[in-house]
Amino acid sequence: MTTAHLTFDQTGDKIAERVVKMRSSAVRDLFAAASNPNIISLSGGMPDVSLLPHSAIRTATRAACDDERAVALQYGSTDGRVETKQVFCDLMRDIGVRAKPENVMITTGAQEALDLIAKTFLNPGDIVLAEGPTYLGALQAFSAYEPDIRCIPFDDEGMRVDLLEEELARIGKGNPRLKFLYTIPNFQNPGGVTMVPARRKRLLELSEEYGFMVVEDDPYGRLRYGGGHVLPLKALSDDVVYLGTVSKVFAPGLRTGWIVAPKSVLAKINLVKQGTDLCGSAFNQVVVEHYFTDTPWQKTLQKFVKTYRTRRDAMLAALDEHFPAEATWTRPEGGFFVWVTLPSYVDTGSMLSVALENGVTYTPGDGFYPGGSAGKNCMRIAFCYESPENLAEAVKRLAAVINDRLELYRAFIDAGAIKAE
Amino acid sequence: MTTAHLTFDQTGDKIAERVVKMRSSAVRDLFAAASNPNIISLSGGMPDVSLLPHSAIRTATRAACDDERAVALQYGSTDGRVETKQVFCDLMRDIGVRAKPENVMITTGAQEALDLIAKTFLNPGDIVLAEGPTYLGALQAFSAYEPDIRCIPFDDEGMRVDLLEEELARIGKGNPRLKFLYTIPNFQNPGGVTMVPARRKRLLELSEEYGFMVVEDDPYGRLRYGGGHVLPLKALSDDVVYLGTVSKVFAPGLRTGWIVAPKSVLAKINLVKQGTDLCGSAFNQVVVEHYFTDTPWQKTLQKFVKTYRTRRDAMLAALDEHFPAEATWTRPEGGFFVWVTLPSYVDTGSMLSVALENGVTYTPGDGFYPGGSAGKNCMRIAFCYESPENLAEAVKRLAAVINDRLELYRAFIDAGAIKAE
Repeated sequence: MTTAHLTFDQTGDKIAERVVKMRSSAVRDLFAAASNPNIISLSGGMPDVSLLPHSAIRTATRAACDDERAVALQYGSTDGRVETKQVFCDLMRDIGVRAKPENVMITTGAQEALDLIAKTFLNPGDIVLAEGPTYLGALQAFSAYEPDIRCIPFDDEGMRVDLLEEELARIGKGNPRLKFLYTIPNFQNPGGVTMVPARRKRLLELSEEYGFMVVEDDPYGRLRYGGGHVLPLKALSDDVVYLGTVSKVFAPGLRTGWIVAPKSVLAKINLVKQGTDLCGSAFNQVVVEHYFTDTPWQKTLQKFVKTYRTRRDAMLAALDEHFPAEATWTRPEGGFFVWVTLPSYVDTGSMLSVALENGVTYTPGDGFYPGGSAGKNCMRIAFCYESPENLAEAVKRLAAVINDRLELYRAFIDAGAIKAE
Repeated sequence: MTTAHLTFDQTGDKIAERVVKMRSSAVRDLFAAASNPNIISLSGGMPDVSLLPHSAIRTATRAACDDERAVALQYGSTDGRVETKQVFCDLMRDIGVRAKPENVMITTGAQEALDLIAKTFLNPGDIVLAEGPTYLGALQAFSAYEPDIRCIPFDDEGMRVDLLEEELARIGKGNPRLKFLYTIPNFQNPGGVTMVPARRKRLLELSEEYGFMVVEDDPYGRLRYGGGHVLPLKALSDDVVYLGTVSKVFAPGLRTGWIVAPKSVLAKINLVKQGTDLCGSAFNQVVVEHYFTDTPWQKTLQKFVKTYRTRRDAMLAALDEHFPAEATWTRPEGGFFVWVTLPSYVDTGSMLSVALENGVTYTPGDGFYPGGSAGKNCMRIAFCYESPENLAEAVKRLAAVINDRLELYRAFIDAGAIKAE
């Protein structure tokens, strides 16, 4: 019974509507390219886990293999272990948020939290607000539930709350389709920008006035290389749904994130989570708990911060030195990313293959907009993973590729074939 | 800014349609009760991880902490590590299935696979066929995508393929709404029954004739306590989508499962998985790989089989001894579960609180039917977790509770108030 041809046809016919428009993530697809040693990758958002002390990993893992293995190897509760929740409450306290374990749910990375929130709250056509550009994994998670995602631009002070207000006026008060606003207020992905306190306050006022939930995604909050701590939205309002993850302060390979939210919100998400994954990995939750209780993790975090600060500085210096006058970029105070905007006639998607040939990768900007609706002349470049020397070399290579493009266009402009900006 | 009352109202208004009908899993809710030491639990499907040798856990974990930690702690590819996929190919070969890593996707437990398959293929109203009763986690996973789930009864030889054929005739050939059939052919959950080879063959013929995918869920296949190996559906047709998990042969706390499917099917699921979880835990995948390559896992599996066989025998003996003539039950050749059917006037849902007071729990039968549409007079009892002595005691307690109920009803019947069956 061999019916390979039949299967192929079946699959095309049988997929759900929600899948028809899905696109593969360019970042995911670039993982393979990034493993070529001659190519310097500015595309992935991978933390440098080589900075983790070997002894800390062994210490963190010990309990899961020994005293607590009966729990670590078994099924757990859908919302996670209370001991690990308590650790996350302690982490939240450090950044100005009071939370109890009953307000915490543990998820398989923050990505699962994004999926669960969308699955719990979104009907097709519902409105989601987000920075534009925004995290492409969030766009992928939300899009599966077919919402109407509306993008609010940012500037150096974070989301343009004045433009948000204009969008809300169009949506109207009490609109049942308006479900939530998704924001990465600290060192935004891909923007690198941070929302200033006054805008955070105004955003929360608008959420009350227009009746939408605020989902605050904060993977990079502890990776600040300059300026002072800004209070999370969650510290300003109990209603906020806050997403945390150990991926950038410990290790993404453990896929452990958490949600802090009102109990009524968590109860609904829990119902959805039961069918989605039954429960997360108790083993990983035990390892994470002991990483934050039995190892000098703050010292390790300082090492992360110091290393990433040096890399950010190297990238910004190289951009200042090599990038053409036509390019603009953000100057992040933390996180992993710089957002570059080129003249509107440059298509960073088609330029990527040339960049690859020249030994450098980046992430084209259109992936950070729903349906690739904008950002074609933009790119995200990451400074988290490569050495300062490699970053300088990569920016230099990238600048050469961009300059080649610009020269081509300058020639067209000089010839009157296209219009200068 | 305190608006707790407002949040509560918001949540009620804002949840998605798909969540409105969701019910919490009775099994999940019973986890708390099961931790009371005076209560013997027949409700959970928890493997006895205390049977795992301590040394095997340490050995399996070593590589993830040492040589391979750079990979184990980092993000991985969405479909999983190729080395771990190869291990699963080796496990498949043992049971008669040839598979290559390119036909394998690693998931966060088989539960994630169920969610991903439903998410990839189901539009609201699409038809899914399944044994009735069936695994309640599958019902929860599928229900989020609002399909029309149709139940096919089983008998001692597995799914009644003759009744499947009648259902298919009603659905009609080439019906675009018909997406897949979900089956647990070995030691079914909750039925304990195994589908005989002739029915497996006929099922696959029908899948070709009517154009539906077959999803074969096989968590218990290696836990056989009597009879001979039956070839998986996947060994009979390349088109089958096979789900495996390490939860019952190693440890559920590692949340590692896998899908074996045609590449065209996996490509679609991969697209959906990117937004759902980005990637699974590389750490756990490394641990699982080394469990199956560096430890005497077959010997450990034999220990599992021997232990569970003794427990099954103890439960069946106690049922024979204590259960009333009005009750019938299945006699599983493997797996974790016995399915008990009581007279139609017994409601196992309302009886559960009495059983709890008498120091025993089970899982009421209606949770294993979509929307609780049947099975109210049935229950699933698990023999996997308790000692033979505890199982005998638990069955005795349960028999007393049931006999009390039956006596009450016998009195009503004698008085002519209700009709005898």
